Amino acid sequence: MAIRIGLLGGTGVEGRGIALRFAHAGASVAIGSRSVERAREAAAAYNQALGSGAIEGLSNSEVLGRSDIVFLTLPYDQAPAALDALRADMPSGLVLVDVTVPMAFREGRAEYEEPAEGSNAERLALHLPPGVHLVGAFKTIPAHVMAEVQTPLDCDVYVCGDDAGARARVMDAARLIPTLRPVDAGPLRAARTLERMTVLAVNLNRRYKRKGARYRIQGIE
Amino acid sequence: MAIRIGLLGGTGVEGRGIALRFAHAGASVAIGSRSVERAREAAAAYNQALGSGAIEGLSNSEVLGRSDIVFLTLPYDQAPAALDALRADMPSGLVLVDVTVPMAFREGRAEYEEPAEGSNAERLALHLPPGVHLVGAFKTIPAHVMAEVQTPLDCDVYVCGDDAGARARVMDAARLIPTLRPVDAGPLRAARTLERMTVLAVNLNRRYKRKGARYRIQGIE
Repeated sequence: MAIRIGLLGGTGVEGRGIALRFAHAGASVAIGSRSVERAREAAAAYNQALGSGAIEGLSNSEVLGRSDIVFLTLPYDQAPAALDALRADMPSGLVLVDVTVPMAFREGRAEYEEPAEGSNAERLALHLPPGVHLVGAFKTIPAHVMAEVQTPLDCDVYVCGDDAGARARVMDAARLIPTLRPVDAGPLRAARTLERMTVLAVNLNRRYKRKGARYRIQGIE
Repeated sequence: MAIRIGLLGGTGVEGRGIALRFAHAGASVAIGSRSVERAREAAAAYNQALGSGAIEGLSNSEVLGRSDIVFLTLPYDQAPAALDALRADMPSGLVLVDVTVPMAFREGRAEYEEPAEGSNAERLALHLPPGVHLVGAFKTIPAHVMAEVQTPLDCDVYVCGDDAGARARVMDAARLIPTLRPVDAGPLRAARTLERMTVLAVNLNRRYKRKGARYRIQGIE
């Protein structure tokens, strides 16, 4: 059976790329939103872009109930309250994946907005019930490159989290996407590095007038 | 005339790789040490490894007086006092390059030792006289890979610093080394990211049982 990928808040630009890449790779994908209507509209648009019917639109709580792995693509400031509200809908053993990076733009440069917890991933982990695992991943890959499913990624996806089994599940899922290499980045606090790497890549895009700066590590083949 | 590369504290493993790569690329290289005798011994050994005479051993203050760019490869805890002692020997316009990363090993993992100033590069910058520029670079490239001059690097060297001219000079110097791509990482505080990236690479080496993890960014060609 195909892996079931879910997205909470999957109607934005980050959700779009993840939904398209996983659906294109053969996964069953469910987009969640607070409004089921908006989720269905986004799913219909994504299916049309792919020429497939692999993506469905559901409520956020339905997504939590039917997915193996759920990506959090909620706006940064809304994510903690959304997780608190959905806490009762999270089955034990669920793997949630935080893909977001807190940054602000000042004087034409992106700056990392360091959370008091050390990273956004560590911040969100405090809002999950016991037995639900937070993994940080896909942070360093530009959303619009993810959304161009015909563009080879040719980069790494760094996966961090304190539960080794949850990390392994996300790495297995990432392996479905061609030209993407999952790399085990260790415990959740590695997100402190990964989130800053994203900010650096955003600034390199600006400096080099590109849009797709993304990392690949040499020497661990 | 060949670019004149200097190293303060160039008798250690990090200095060795930088000296060998630049000498191999045709630069004139001066190794500094508190002991001129030790500097000369190291230079002789490096010259023998290369089959050349491009590397000479001098005192640290002599290195500062005759080099276009000086790499700091001093032990982390000794560097601030060494810079304070050498302050009067630094000509205005000098470019100093910090290549080091503060880390400690706990439970088999490398951890970043965050300096109060935000990064080691920012910490050292406070010990320089006006008109001397600190650049952070070569932080993410493993020292032993640098020292294997026949091994293609196939990676980026990220260069950060608050003086754009000093960054450009270090990038120009780095271009002498084949298979290495200089990338302009912006202001000195980008070292907060680069130093953490080094720690991540060290941990990936341990996890993947490799020694040469190093970064290359896709999508900014």
